[in-house]
Amino acid sequence: MKKPTLERRISVGNLPQALLGYAVGCYECHGLNPGIHRDNFKHMGNSINVVVTPSDCKTCHPAEAGQFEGSKKAYAYKDLMENSVYRMLVGTITGVKRIDSGKIATDKPSEMTLHETCLGCHGTKVDSNGMKTITTRLGKIEIPDLTNWPNQGVGRVNPDGSRGSCSACHARHAFSIGMARKPYTCSQCHLEPDVPAWNVYEESKHGDILFSKYQEWNFDSVPWVMGKDFKAPSCSACHNSLLVSASGDIVAERTHDFGSRLWVRLFGLIYSHAQPKSGDTTIIKNKDGLPLPATFAGQPASEYLIDKSEQGKRLRAFENICNGCHSTQWIEGHFAKLDNTVKETDEMTLAATKLMTEAWEEGMEDKTNPFDETLEKMWAGQWLFYSNSVRYASAMTGAPDYTSFKNGWWYMSENLQHMKDWIELRKELKEKH
Amino acid sequence: MKKPTLERRISVGNLPQALLGYAVGCYECHGLNPGIHRDNFKHMGNSINVVVTPSDCKTCHPAEAGQFEGSKKAYAYKDLMENSVYRMLVGTITGVKRIDSGKIATDKPSEMTLHETCLGCHGTKVDSNGMKTITTRLGKIEIPDLTNWPNQGVGRVNPDGSRGSCSACHARHAFSIGMARKPYTCSQCHLEPDVPAWNVYEESKHGDILFSKYQEWNFDSVPWVMGKDFKAPSCSACHNSLLVSASGDIVAERTHDFGSRLWVRLFGLIYSHAQPKSGDTTIIKNKDGLPLPATFAGQPASEYLIDKSEQGKRLRAFENICNGCHSTQWIEGHFAKLDNTVKETDEMTLAATKLMTEAWEEGMEDKTNPFDETLEKMWAGQWLFYSNSVRYASAMTGAPDYTSFKNGWWYMSENLQHMKDWIELRKELKEKH
Amino acid sequence: MKKPTLERRISVGNLPQALLGYAVGCYECHGLNPGIHRDNFKHMGNSINVVVTPSDCKTCHPAEAGQFEGSKKAYAYKDLMENSVYRMLVGTITGVKRIDSGKIATDKPSEMTLHETCLGCHGTKVDSNGMKTITTRLGKIEIPDLTNWPNQGVGRVNPDGSRGSCSACHARHAFSIGMARKPYTCSQCHLEPDVPAWNVYEESKHGDILFSKYQEWNFDSVPWVMGKDFKAPSCSACHNSLLVSASGDIVAERTHDFGSRLWVRLFGLIYSHAQPKSGDTTIIKNKDGLPLPATFAGQPASEYLIDKSEQGKRLRAFENICNGCHSTQWIEGHFAKLDNTVKETDEMTLAATKLMTEAWEEGMEDKTNPFDETLEKMWAGQWLFYSNSVRYASAMTGAPDYTSFKNGWWYMSENLQHMKDWIELRKELKEKH
Repeated sequence: MKKPTLERRISVGNLPQALLGYAVGCYECHGLNPGIHRDNFKHMGNSINVVVTPSDCKTCHPAEAGQFEGSKKAYAYKDLMENSVYRMLVGTITGVKRIDSGKIATDKPSEMTLHETCLGCHGTKVDSNGMKTITTRLGKIEIPDLTNWPNQGVGRVNPDGSRGSCSACHARHAFSIGMARKPYTCSQCHLEPDVPAWNVYEESKHGDILFSKYQEWNFDSVPWVMGKDFKAPSCSACHNSLLVSASGDIVAERTHDFGSRLWVRLFGLIYSHAQPKSGDTTIIKNKDGLPLPATFAGQPASEYLIDKSEQGKRLRAFENICNGCHSTQWIEGHFAKLDNTVKETDEMTLAATKLMTEAWEEGMEDKTNPFDETLEKMWAGQWLFYSNSVRYASAMTGAPDYTSFKNGWWYMSENLQHMKDWIELRKELKEKH
Repeated sequence: MKKPTLERRISVGNLPQALLGYAVGCYECHGLNPGIHRDNFKHMGNSINVVVTPSDCKTCHPAEAGQFEGSKKAYAYKDLMENSVYRMLVGTITGVKRIDSGKIATDKPSEMTLHETCLGCHGTKVDSNGMKTITTRLGKIEIPDLTNWPNQGVGRVNPDGSRGSCSACHARHAFSIGMARKPYTCSQCHLEPDVPAWNVYEESKHGDILFSKYQEWNFDSVPWVMGKDFKAPSCSACHNSLLVSASGDIVAERTHDFGSRLWVRLFGLIYSHAQPKSGDTTIIKNKDGLPLPATFAGQPASEYLIDKSEQGKRLRAFENICNGCHSTQWIEGHFAKLDNTVKETDEMTLAATKLMTEAWEEGMEDKTNPFDETLEKMWAGQWLFYSNSVRYASAMTGAPDYTSFKNGWWYMSENLQHMKDWIELRKELKEKH
Repeated sequence: MKKPTLERRISVGNLPQALLGYAVGCYECHGLNPGIHRDNFKHMGNSINVVVTPSDCKTCHPAEAGQFEGSKKAYAYKDLMENSVYRMLVGTITGVKRIDSGKIATDKPSEMTLHETCLGCHGTKVDSNGMKTITTRLGKIEIPDLTNWPNQGVGRVNPDGSRGSCSACHARHAFSIGMARKPYTCSQCHLEPDVPAWNVYEESKHGDILFSKYQEWNFDSVPWVMGKDFKAPSCSACHNSLLVSASGDIVAERTHDFGSRLWVRLFGLIYSHAQPKSGDTTIIKNKDGLPLPATFAGQPASEYLIDKSEQGKRLRAFENICNGCHSTQWIEGHFAKLDNTVKETDEMTLAATKLMTEAWEEGMEDKTNPFDETLEKMWAGQWLFYSNSVRYASAMTGAPDYTSFKNGWWYMSENLQHMKDWIELRKELKEKH
């Protein structure tokens, strides 16, 4: 609290009286807000919560918790599980399949499999089913019987009703800022084939410099001085850290709303699109009537997305970060390339969509669930794996192997060929009846 | 020898008189047991073995060599090459294929290709074909003409008749305990797509903490103090190191029988199953009459596998390690999830087996070799790549990307669809004759 | 300049008078040879080049620039873009595909997509379209309007007419020798699925030792002392660094012609072959009349390739490096294995070629473009991904997983099966007409 604002690691103005003068131990975090914690229990005479939530962390870090609250990360559970289209994707992939009189029948996915697949990153719904008795090294104790626990998914729904898990990035019980700034942390979730941020970064020039040199850098200093504390950006440098120049000027403010610096959304949806206005993307309704930011034919649901002017503002702020090391011409060349890639990869997705639509119209496959038949799976691969990968590689200044081969243009092109082959094959077989 | 037992790096009680008082140089290891070494030769006046084997290391490390001797690792060559089913798999994959009047003919795999494929990890059979003369920088010398050398596969059959290679993990000539404790060492063999231990670990929370922080840890101290020398487990911490708590209590004894802490076997076989009783798995015979721990329909060959009570004992001992950092509820939630995953992935394998069996019954493919035709290869991928990967990711508390996409549920589900498509296609074509 | 020759980091004999006595700042590099730089402009009163090229670096490093000039790396742009066969491959992969009346039509690839796919590594053609005005933080300035910039591909064609980019490996503005010696640098381009040098190295015994220990090594010393500065080779140790033994004897001279230590070329072409004599491989013409080092049936274009005697000389010099740590028998065993692997993987490619040729002869596919149809893509995968991967894994003493499964023998064998299946399917459908 005595440090200048820029160097502070807590953002609260006035600490609650009860915490002033204490170092942070167990109880300072696990004892907060017991009244609303459905996971509260008596432990050695104290009233303890099993799960520490963003609402608890907010006591000392209100700015960070506030930014996070409205972000897509906070809504990661809801945005997946309460979106009818995505829920169908999840169910199609993770339900056990059984062969029943020569047919494949799909079970409803089990809670436990959801817990360790999609919800491992997106976060589970942790709640209490009442109390249960367990046997520990210290004997029998009564504890809350929690559902879908343990989990530290970033959009976890907590037993105090809050959303999120700070330990997704700030691992217990060090809660290190330095660890969160290293790409290993982001690599827990942002990985190929669907979100190859780590993989692309690792092969990029930025990654080369970081991995070759980072042992000589300082990942713990606040604020983070560009060119002094680090010489090539890690993920957090561009996406959320408080950065200052060598002369102490603020280059970027810290944010825990991880999408707020971004103007375009590159992954996870069928087409890339302007960032959504709200972290809660379940409110979107496109012209197809679906909760997706674009129709199957690519028309954006613009009223739910930020507009050109906001996009431009964010791009310029982002370029200011690049400008810490790179010239204006360099940066303009880079982002012109990204714009072109967004356009071309969306065109490659559209080509796949046209083939799938043809198959639907010919009655080859059934559009009710767009993820459960042969061509539909190829179509999903086209955007979820291949277009996404090319866009990531384009955005992160390097990693030409990912654009060319590894889940890139090679596969985007081959996949279209396979879709076409399959359609032709089915047609030829039908004709022969 | 003067150190307290817990801190000792050698396990012998009384060193042979000839070694007492010497530091370890070349001859102390390369000169042992010359009488039984078929790779022994005279070198600058000394009688030298080219290959140092676990029987030689046993001189100072009898406890470790003894544990290793009976382990699956020691039998890695035999368990692969003297198992008729696995031998067929090996031959089908690694034999050169030739196109002969429009047909694919498969050669017997060459020794050299076996040497650098399967036996690169499993170990080769190193023996002496007598002596040969070679020209070195020091002129012509006579040396033993060794087969399948160099190799440091963990189940190598040595020219003194022993099994194994300590340098698989303790690279010559440092033989570092610290290196063996780092996951880079395990990553030489335990890799995707069939055994993705390294890949899953790298994306896990444990991996995040280790890679972000390990330069501040101590990988060389004996015993290894949890929470002090290291703050997140590497592979060896859970699987074989001697661990003590901060107060000096033994949490786990050192073992070089790497399966001995495990209750269930997750990979390498068609279905997961209780750990085998013996490291020599060629002795197993299941109800199908095959040397596999379960039948094609999934029935375990229980008499060769540890029983429920032994499984429970091992699980509880393992949980004691987790308990060094995690609460009982946390651990129980984790292993309940793993149990469910074992069950569901085996069901996904069974679905693939049913489709293959249908194809055999319809005469589409020939069951003599279950690895050499189209559907059979898809079936093998279902367990060898996909079910295995999901189980690894489940076991290692994290890596949700591997369960969901990367060789995980996405591919398990898609692969079944492809198998079904292929069967339908063949049927339709047949009907049209 | 005052250091003994072996320890020098610059290779010029007499520095130009204008540079003597100066430390290297911005202008010392960006101000060189302005007369031939089409990217020159006036900046704060100085005449500045945007792009620093190998011709500029040559001022102080003439030996390195001279070696590089004739290498395949320097010709990486030309060897790809001015080779008719390779140009077809590039266009087939990276052109946007559109569905037009049920057919797939391929656009010409855009400059920007080429820039960030193939040419990201191979290098772009950077030239000036005249001047343009941009707005920077310092106000409006006039700068050269550069094409295909930024780029640091190793075979970049520069606005002074030179070829190459030193910053491909020596990242601006540190130009560190230590960074270039770490495998992270090579990993920017030499990656799976087509060139899996990094991936194979990472799993090898050499990689295990390096990643476990390299923080204790010295990557910056010149010359680089084997066994003292480092204990396991990184990429550069074997391929281009100046190495000396502990006693100061030269084990290998420094070279920036990265192919010059190699006798056989393992990747990138349909069949492995003796290294080409010239870095400019567009001059090759084989018996098929194509600019490829072997015909489709595997016959080498020997007059353009180094002969047996030169191959032997290079192999012996390379073995001398291995001999720094390994015995002669060890090395001979290793390279005998590589020879066999080169032969067998070429046979596996030949099998795929025969199937494709059959399809051409039967009129199933059209040979005009050998990369754009279903079987052709499988054929390209056979050598570009699978044969290449096995050879890399064989060459780098380890990584048995890459030979066996990951893009290795498993896929080489399965891919042939798929090619055969496709041919049979097409035939059966045709017969039914």
